[in-house]
Amino acid sequence: MKTGFFGDIQKIKYEGPDSTNPLAYRFYNPDEIVAGKRLEDHLRFAVAYWHSFAWEGSDPFGGRTFDRPWYDGEMEKAKLKADVAFEMFSLLGAPYYCFHDADARPEGKTFAEDKKNLEEIVDYFAQKQEETGVKLLWGTANLFSNRRFMSGASTNPDPDVFAYSAATIKTCMDATQKLGGENYVLWGGREGYETLLNTDLSREFDQMARMLHMVVDYKHKIGFKGAILVEPKPQEPTKHQYDYDVATVYGFLKKYGLENEVKMNIEQGHAILAGHTFEHELALANAHGIFGSIDMNRNDYQSGWDTDQFPNNVPEMALAYYQVLLAGGFTTGGTNFDSKLRRQSINPEDLLIGHIGGMDSCARGLKAAAKMLEDGALSKPLADRYAKWNDAEAQKMLRGDYSLEEITARVERENINPEPKSGRQELLENVVNRYV
Amino acid sequence: MKTGFFGDIQKIKYEGPDSTNPLAYRFYNPDEIVAGKRLEDHLRFAVAYWHSFAWEGSDPFGGRTFDRPWYDGEMEKAKLKADVAFEMFSLLGAPYYCFHDADARPEGKTFAEDKKNLEEIVDYFAQKQEETGVKLLWGTANLFSNRRFMSGASTNPDPDVFAYSAATIKTCMDATQKLGGENYVLWGGREGYETLLNTDLSREFDQMARMLHMVVDYKHKIGFKGAILVEPKPQEPTKHQYDYDVATVYGFLKKYGLENEVKMNIEQGHAILAGHTFEHELALANAHGIFGSIDMNRNDYQSGWDTDQFPNNVPEMALAYYQVLLAGGFTTGGTNFDSKLRRQSINPEDLLIGHIGGMDSCARGLKAAAKMLEDGALSKPLADRYAKWNDAEAQKMLRGDYSLEEITARVERENINPEPKSGRQELLENVVNRYV
Amino acid sequence: MKTGFFGDIQKIKYEGPDSTNPLAYRFYNPDEIVAGKRLEDHLRFAVAYWHSFAWEGSDPFGGRTFDRPWYDGEMEKAKLKADVAFEMFSLLGAPYYCFHDADARPEGKTFAEDKKNLEEIVDYFAQKQEETGVKLLWGTANLFSNRRFMSGASTNPDPDVFAYSAATIKTCMDATQKLGGENYVLWGGREGYETLLNTDLSREFDQMARMLHMVVDYKHKIGFKGAILVEPKPQEPTKHQYDYDVATVYGFLKKYGLENEVKMNIEQGHAILAGHTFEHELALANAHGIFGSIDMNRNDYQSGWDTDQFPNNVPEMALAYYQVLLAGGFTTGGTNFDSKLRRQSINPEDLLIGHIGGMDSCARGLKAAAKMLEDGALSKPLADRYAKWNDAEAQKMLRGDYSLEEITARVERENINPEPKSGRQELLENVVNRYV
Amino acid sequence: MKTGFFGDIQKIKYEGPDSTNPLAYRFYNPDEIVAGKRLEDHLRFAVAYWHSFAWEGSDPFGGRTFDRPWYDGEMEKAKLKADVAFEMFSLLGAPYYCFHDADARPEGKTFAEDKKNLEEIVDYFAQKQEETGVKLLWGTANLFSNRRFMSGASTNPDPDVFAYSAATIKTCMDATQKLGGENYVLWGGREGYETLLNTDLSREFDQMARMLHMVVDYKHKIGFKGAILVEPKPQEPTKHQYDYDVATVYGFLKKYGLENEVKMNIEQGHAILAGHTFEHELALANAHGIFGSIDMNRNDYQSGWDTDQFPNNVPEMALAYYQVLLAGGFTTGGTNFDSKLRRQSINPEDLLIGHIGGMDSCARGLKAAAKMLEDGALSKPLADRYAKWNDAEAQKMLRGDYSLEEITARVERENINPEPKSGRQELLENVVNRYV
Ligand SMILES: [Co+2]
Ligand SMILES: [Co+2]
Ligand SMILES: [Co+2]
Ligand SMILES: [Co+2]
Ligand SMILES: [Co+2]
Ligand SMILES: [Co+2]
Ligand SMILES: [Co+2]
Ligand SMILES: [Co+2]
Repeated sequence: MKTGFFGDIQKIKYEGPDSTNPLAYRFYNPDEIVAGKRLEDHLRFAVAYWHSFAWEGSDPFGGRTFDRPWYDGEMEKAKLKADVAFEMFSLLGAPYYCFHDADARPEGKTFAEDKKNLEEIVDYFAQKQEETGVKLLWGTANLFSNRRFMSGASTNPDPDVFAYSAATIKTCMDATQKLGGENYVLWGGREGYETLLNTDLSREFDQMARMLHMVVDYKHKIGFKGAILVEPKPQEPTKHQYDYDVATVYGFLKKYGLENEVKMNIEQGHAILAGHTFEHELALANAHGIFGSIDMNRNDYQSGWDTDQFPNNVPEMALAYYQVLLAGGFTTGGTNFDSKLRRQSINPEDLLIGHIGGMDSCARGLKAAAKMLEDGALSKPLADRYAKWNDAEAQKMLRGDYSLEEITARVERENINPEPKSGRQELLENVVNRYV
Repeated sequence: MKTGFFGDIQKIKYEGPDSTNPLAYRFYNPDEIVAGKRLEDHLRFAVAYWHSFAWEGSDPFGGRTFDRPWYDGEMEKAKLKADVAFEMFSLLGAPYYCFHDADARPEGKTFAEDKKNLEEIVDYFAQKQEETGVKLLWGTANLFSNRRFMSGASTNPDPDVFAYSAATIKTCMDATQKLGGENYVLWGGREGYETLLNTDLSREFDQMARMLHMVVDYKHKIGFKGAILVEPKPQEPTKHQYDYDVATVYGFLKKYGLENEVKMNIEQGHAILAGHTFEHELALANAHGIFGSIDMNRNDYQSGWDTDQFPNNVPEMALAYYQVLLAGGFTTGGTNFDSKLRRQSINPEDLLIGHIGGMDSCARGLKAAAKMLEDGALSKPLADRYAKWNDAEAQKMLRGDYSLEEITARVERENINPEPKSGRQELLENVVNRYV
Repeated sequence: MKTGFFGDIQKIKYEGPDSTNPLAYRFYNPDEIVAGKRLEDHLRFAVAYWHSFAWEGSDPFGGRTFDRPWYDGEMEKAKLKADVAFEMFSLLGAPYYCFHDADARPEGKTFAEDKKNLEEIVDYFAQKQEETGVKLLWGTANLFSNRRFMSGASTNPDPDVFAYSAATIKTCMDATQKLGGENYVLWGGREGYETLLNTDLSREFDQMARMLHMVVDYKHKIGFKGAILVEPKPQEPTKHQYDYDVATVYGFLKKYGLENEVKMNIEQGHAILAGHTFEHELALANAHGIFGSIDMNRNDYQSGWDTDQFPNNVPEMALAYYQVLLAGGFTTGGTNFDSKLRRQSINPEDLLIGHIGGMDSCARGLKAAAKMLEDGALSKPLADRYAKWNDAEAQKMLRGDYSLEEITARVERENINPEPKSGRQELLENVVNRYV
Repeated sequence: MKTGFFGDIQKIKYEGPDSTNPLAYRFYNPDEIVAGKRLEDHLRFAVAYWHSFAWEGSDPFGGRTFDRPWYDGEMEKAKLKADVAFEMFSLLGAPYYCFHDADARPEGKTFAEDKKNLEEIVDYFAQKQEETGVKLLWGTANLFSNRRFMSGASTNPDPDVFAYSAATIKTCMDATQKLGGENYVLWGGREGYETLLNTDLSREFDQMARMLHMVVDYKHKIGFKGAILVEPKPQEPTKHQYDYDVATVYGFLKKYGLENEVKMNIEQGHAILAGHTFEHELALANAHGIFGSIDMNRNDYQSGWDTDQFPNNVPEMALAYYQVLLAGGFTTGGTNFDSKLRRQSINPEDLLIGHIGGMDSCARGLKAAAKMLEDGALSKPLADRYAKWNDAEAQKMLRGDYSLEEITARVERENINPEPKSGRQELLENVVNRYV
């Protein structure tokens, strides 16, 4: 039953912080209770099918470096790929996975062929899920790799591509529903432009909104219980993507009345590319009530493309999970490793080691965050800082009980001349360093 | 009556493209009719009081380099500054100027002193406007330089700073109204954060929205006819500014129901810092119906701060004015030179030369843009590209007459398999190069 | 004899600035005399075989978009590719081309196969050159695409890869010599690292220097008359490339005593990625005596990867050619279009249109630069600015005739207290705008 | 004797990792032996006089936020500043400090006044050093703040500024010598350009090299035992600085024969601005034999200017100190906190807290690095990776015993076809995470 791909490696176990076994967890103990919940239930780890099983190690200047037995074939190879994938999920003890249609099924020549192939592989996934207990965190449609999408999917100047995209999304939503997926994600990798010279923004926004409305309608129609998530990214592959960042998507949702139906799948790497910290994007989504799920990885701050590395900087990750906890933790969402090996990491065990390091770092980050929250290490000073706003007069001012003239009159009458107070940033940074 | 600051330099004249006189216009002929309107009325040039008269040439590693007779003094010096400023507006033939309270008046120790000083200088400005015919494009409040604003103005954790800011805005709106200003601008240079560790985003957004609502209410109350404009900037001076870019501000306005009351003042340099082209920000503001005015300058693409150089790349500027023309041209807005001399450009005539180069480049860019628009050089290919969306079925799909299932059924029935079409980017770029 | 790939398009002609024919030159008149030399002899245009004929339109998120008759085949297809390529060189009137071994020959399974394939295609190229009069500007080896090079070519931790790379370079130098190539280029796309954790900088520098020494030795041995050129690039595909920029390569050449044997092939896009302007890299190479040739393209300033677009911003290009002219113009070097179509530009004629726009922009830029130089528009003010250094005492100080103490004594004695002078940047920028 | 500035705060003590006292060290125990040396002797901490005592909290959009009793005065205030500074050094237990002339002395109107003021304050510093036992890590001249240096110091177009700079450097070298400074640093903040249009690179390089030669000569003449250090920075305040990064300075030193006389003072923030990691710059300096000292801070990766924050990311810092240890540790150099408070951190105790956090993070990073080195955690896998280069044939190839033809012949003869090996990046990253 084992494929043999991972040799004789056994299920990865928790061995504690002192372990030097590269194939063991040092911090991720799924059953450990943190802030009243099992660590596994906090983190809700998912493996991304695409990076680990479909990507071949190519980059813009070089081709395939990996050498996997499931490459270059049709349905049988696709099933072998699934066998290895679910084997890896089980070895890692990862409770979830995520996939695009194109990662999983062989590519057909027509929509009908693609659909038929997808249905066959979805049946196979269902059986694998049954056997392993692994679940689907989310499904999604790949509307960016095939040349038919080169000028956009829903935002294509050709309405036939819009239609084709709609049909593809439907099959992927159906697959997600069938597999018990807990969310459905849209990443608009081609919904953007290379040049404004050939682009009509208003038209393309309307097209994109129409598609999203149809997705929401279909969700309700089929009784899909999960969340519809949009994943922002500012650029790459295109010059400009419409789902630039959380703030931009929020404005779009508000414009088209979708803010109560759609939430965010926020990726560290995409936050960075947009000029934001990961925790900023998380905090903003929470402030706007649209926090959903996260794609966990790490971008090289100094490479201008999406490096999608396995995350490992615990102090940074603690700040991200702190925002997740502030948002109440995950409901339907989870921690999807949208992370890929470096293309030189060609050994099968590298696949495990990348995930182990990522999962351990997440666990360490989350535990630090939970402790900070429990201690009120940051929240107490924060409350103090804004305390004067709790005064009755301040509250009235904030609620809008006073006009500009009334406030001005009070400033003059009371000769208000505020003295600044220390923001204590270094103190707070040192406090965080007590936890990480 | 002349201050002598500019020696014997006379009013700058249009001498045509072949002139080699550094103190003449080669392209800016205010009376030239372009697309049915005088060039002056298209461009609506304004000089920024701050950069040319208040900034002293300092940068983070060095102090004052300029040596102006109005430095280091009180009201008399402030009036000398105004004398030179209006002299320069007249020499340039610039129809407008813009200012912050702090650029114009000596700084007081209290709100009352600041207000009194401002009122005195506003009277002086009024007299200068009368004498010269120069008008006020917009006024604004400086809520970022004084240490009291170090942790924010409307978003300060101290409600007294909110109140002080409100009072300051009122005095500046009053000044703008009195001087016949055609817009009122808000730039939130301190409305942001240095670290999320000490920041409550939701609170601060609510505070900022309250202030903006009061501004809008006061505008209506006093019958101010101009537009209320917000100027986005992503960062600098802070780590993150809430008015990050046009998309972000749009989302904010929608959240707080302000999208019909507030428009955008878009700066080239700030667009660049946010990772966008200037024309992107203009096109987006137009698509969202919130285009207002522009701050014209040029940022060094490779310096990570706001270099605010005089603009001079005509091909880029033509694309920006093309978007302005697509938006219908300026109504209350205009072209404000938010541009400053390099700090080594210490001669009085450098002030004129910087503006002359900028005005000439704008004129050249606008004329190219107007011709492109007149010829349909870009708009005809654009219409062609999206032509299939004019079909009745496509329109129905866009309007929402079909569901995901209905579209999918059609894709299957008609075996839709779209063939991509060339985006012709290089062709369009070559077309633009015919005009610039 | 015609392949039919370009339909009935005829040789592109010069039609002058007023032409609106997209398949004509408006500025590139090869026989026009500029500063005493034919424009063709100034610019020495070359087409890059790789981008136009080997690249298939893929990007990190999508596959092939182009649909060329020479894809997916062996030697016959490689020859068809050559037929179309030389047809395009002739249609454009491009006097030169450049290629890597891997662009031109089918890939073999062993070194012997690759070598045999290359030799066959080189014979075919020789015949094509003979027929068309097109010449080889430079040849080069692709030591980055195949997985064997994933951890470096000369800098690989495996000495067998070093050996394999050496052998590949030899075959490419032989090919270049046979085809009368005027330069030989090395671009170290994999000579760098992904992480310092697995990298020994000193070892890898020594390996890289050894290879370069062998290349120089072999050049002399076979009597190759052309220049050996290194092409800097800071990153992409790797995290850090050793040939980071001109300054870095210069230090490397000095360290290993190669500065008189090797010159630079400088690319606009790579200059930008390294944080420099193109003209900076050109001026620096000239200052260090290592200017060789240019790869002309344009990078999107706001995309963090090498976009390799066709160049079209004439004001920027004029400043680049100004530096080329200051360096004395090209000797063995030339203007290679290391530019590729946008992946949506899938029509055969887009290939021509991209090059036509690029060539026209170069011609326009060079003519502007030549005129500026002829007029002394920049060089006269430059000489004035430094004029005081021509004084005898200043020259003695510069030559080293005075010590720190002697100079200090003079400062004290003469109470030297220098007054700054305007740098006149805006004036000079306006002067440049008179030419572009 | 105490100034009272820090209230009743006592000398900061080491209290161990569990301390929650914000005014205690948790990791910096100066007497702890790490790898055979006291921690204090490893780290050699220095406080930067400028950021903590001369900078007033201003940024490009706002003025002074701090409120220090030594502002706005002459010599008495300068002495009060010194009193507080040395009090802080003692409270922190920092063994060293660093200063520019302009930080320490009141500014005069002439060179003679500046010199006299400096001499007076140097005498005062000498007495303070005597009293406290604090030593001078390095001295340096501020050749960037005064407007006379706006167009460069040694690279100024005016030879009088060159002379003035030389005289200033002499006085600062004399001061450093007198105070027993262990290094002398040159940071060329104005040695660069704003625009190539007014710049002659070759001339300016020659001027800069002349100055550096005179500095080296003077060092030998006065028997200064310390190192001459250059501190690279790529840009800010200028568009381009000549001491761009380690690689660039190395090339410059080689060009002018100074590579054995001058070493590097490498700053984290400047490494980042140049597009490098800090550890890259350190490793490169070590590879070129020019490693000297470090300026420890942290730059925001997403702000394009030098944020000079106190460092706190221990995993990153461990990698930096790992390179310091690979270079053999500091000799004359040390860890200078070129770090400044955020401008909102206006309380006296913030000054202490910033340094405490930085020192603790450094201690933690160094201890992790020392343990990694002791365990061979990275060095053993590194040696394995390159092991094949130890073979006799590989060594001969590297030494240059074989030509390109001979190697090619061997590749053909032996049919060499190398198989890539995993770079194991994720494994090594996980290993590092065991130490931090
Ligand atoms: Co993702
Ligand atoms: Co990503
Ligand atoms: Co502005
Ligand atoms: Co600006
Ligand atoms: Co190139
Ligand atoms: Co390139
Ligand atoms: Co420093
Ligand atoms: Co710094």
